[in-house]
Amino acid sequence: MSCSACQWTSLRPFLSGSLVMLCFISLFIMYRSDIKYLDFGKDSQFCPAFLCGDKAQIHHPNPKSVTKLDAENDTIVLIWMWPFGYRFELDCNTFDIKRCHLTGDKTLYQKAHGIIFNHGDMNGNLENLPKMPRPSFQKWVWSNMESPANSPRILGLNRVFNLTCNYRHDSNIQVPYGYLLPVTSEDKSFKLPAKDKLVCWIVSNWARQQKRVQYYNELKKYVKIHTYGQAFGHHISNEDYPKILSSCKFYLSFENSIYEDYITEKFYNPLIWGSVPVVLGPPKQNYEDHAPPDSFIHVNDFSSPQKLAERLLYLDQNNAEYMRFFNWRSIFKVKRSEFGREHACKTCRYLQNHKEYQAFDDLISWYWG
Amino acid sequence: MSCSACQWTSLRPFLSGSLVMLCFISLFIMYRSDIKYLDFGKDSQFCPAFLCGDKAQIHHPNPKSVTKLDAENDTIVLIWMWPFGYRFELDCNTFDIKRCHLTGDKTLYQKAHGIIFNHGDMNGNLENLPKMPRPSFQKWVWSNMESPANSPRILGLNRVFNLTCNYRHDSNIQVPYGYLLPVTSEDKSFKLPAKDKLVCWIVSNWARQQKRVQYYNELKKYVKIHTYGQAFGHHISNEDYPKILSSCKFYLSFENSIYEDYITEKFYNPLIWGSVPVVLGPPKQNYEDHAPPDSFIHVNDFSSPQKLAERLLYLDQNNAEYMRFFNWRSIFKVKRSEFGREHACKTCRYLQNHKEYQAFDDLISWYWG
Repeated sequence: MSCSACQWTSLRPFLSGSLVMLCFISLFIMYRSDIKYLDFGKDSQFCPAFLCGDKAQIHHPNPKSVTKLDAENDTIVLIWMWPFGYRFELDCNTFDIKRCHLTGDKTLYQKAHGIIFNHGDMNGNLENLPKMPRPSFQKWVWSNMESPANSPRILGLNRVFNLTCNYRHDSNIQVPYGYLLPVTSEDKSFKLPAKDKLVCWIVSNWARQQKRVQYYNELKKYVKIHTYGQAFGHHISNEDYPKILSSCKFYLSFENSIYEDYITEKFYNPLIWGSVPVVLGPPKQNYEDHAPPDSFIHVNDFSSPQKLAERLLYLDQNNAEYMRFFNWRSIFKVKRSEFGREHACKTCRYLQNHKEYQAFDDLISWYWG
Repeated sequence: MSCSACQWTSLRPFLSGSLVMLCFISLFIMYRSDIKYLDFGKDSQFCPAFLCGDKAQIHHPNPKSVTKLDAENDTIVLIWMWPFGYRFELDCNTFDIKRCHLTGDKTLYQKAHGIIFNHGDMNGNLENLPKMPRPSFQKWVWSNMESPANSPRILGLNRVFNLTCNYRHDSNIQVPYGYLLPVTSEDKSFKLPAKDKLVCWIVSNWARQQKRVQYYNELKKYVKIHTYGQAFGHHISNEDYPKILSSCKFYLSFENSIYEDYITEKFYNPLIWGSVPVVLGPPKQNYEDHAPPDSFIHVNDFSSPQKLAERLLYLDQNNAEYMRFFNWRSIFKVKRSEFGREHACKTCRYLQNHKEYQAFDDLISWYWG
């Protein structure tokens, strides 16, 4: 090695060192620039006096009707209308919720801490709501499990209720259609049921304009779909329902309307019975708020129904990959919410924990806005 | 220069180059670790596999870390950072919340049912969050009492947390700045304090572009406003604060930024100390979600600051009408939330009641969107 070569050699690492340093500094600046963004905005609104003026008479308590409360007493929840006529058991022990007195006895109105009104039983108006003044400690709870598309918008719903009970995560008392709980040592380990069908769908409510109907009409061109339910003139009994779900590798969990958090039993049933839900509903991110990412397939992950069909056919041939959709079962089990009773019991618990003044004045734009 | 020296010289840049390279790689790894939490935007349903493949490691539980839960044990809430350095008492009895074990001891990470992270202490990045895998039963709680305008937007907040704890009614664990509770027989009846001033304002944070500053500059032309606080070079001690509020008929409860449910101690303090809040903040309807309509005056009810001044001067002369602003006190009393402790205790109660799988993937557009 000559000494002139050595001089060049000693310069080269310096130059490349500088280059690395430059990269280093650029990367650091990139990194720092990600950190702080301030956001100002959201203009204030005005509430016209003709709308806001006489509000107190509606949902605000009447000073004359103040009753002394005894903290030792049970919390009374009055079910003003049985949801769609369904009379459920008036007991909350199954949810480990104590000191609740659920009742359908309207003579207890003056003592009730909360009153539940089921939207679907209001028959489009507020005629069947109580006419008596509201005691100061009493909360009126608007309860609804149907999506906005399936719920008639009733004029006058604003400034009536104190609380909301709904599947939405931003309701006061959230009751989703189902949920995942950590498994305990008592739970049986999961065993995948035997499969003899690739894709199944059970559906009753059918309308051409539904996104799910349009998607199905395309999908069926590329993969055989075993169809059941009233829409296909093939009514399914309660006993057959789990058998069908268990026997299919995939189940079309297609919601009838698309709304945030509107993830119904169509999703939780295949999870319970050992099929993989193929979901059409709110965005994937919203499903991942409620269930692990590897527990379902979202149609939006595919550029077309044909591409989805190709994926399902591929998974049919690759069992190891298919089986990954059941990994989460070593950690979680699935529960469906109990219609009516779970709403009433969770309302009771909410009332026990929230004695403060609360109203929910703008129900209409919150739900249908 | 001898060739043996040359050999050493040619080795030295190589060594220092390697050192720089090492720094470079470390920094790149740091940077990449933030990419894992990247935001793909609300509408995007696609998440590239190289980024989202290992999402389960972020907010989804690790199957290996499942710990058997004993229902008899206390719920453990780990306070990861003391909010703004404030160490509060680790006891929930004052809120009548039982079986909670609040702790700041990070060695309890593996056993904690929930971990609270205060947004303001994140210093603009996620570097000081735990690096260990998350047990299946553990929830990470994003806690913040500041409005979006006063909270730095941190890139990477999406897909990290399970729950939100905030003043907003649509957070999982809502902790408003204050609330009204029904009075009980033990509560003393309210007596209006003596008044020697009509309108008062205490303010420290002052900026020309604030809506409240613009409103004040107009209002003061038509009615005398007694001003205090750092913005007016008149610092108020903790002892003087209630005295001033009590001695004024009206108090300007002007929020520094306008957001739904952002109704702060500026509103609850005059309610506590017997003054009538004149509010500038979210729409009137939103205030009425939290307090009776006849407990405050909303600036939006007046076409101009001059009209508001006229109303205040009128009420100064008409005591019977002024006294109506205190009618609600026969039914309700006011409580301010306890900073830090109330957040931790209510988080504990939420965790006791919600063992189900829950994530909150789109925090950024929820809060700053």
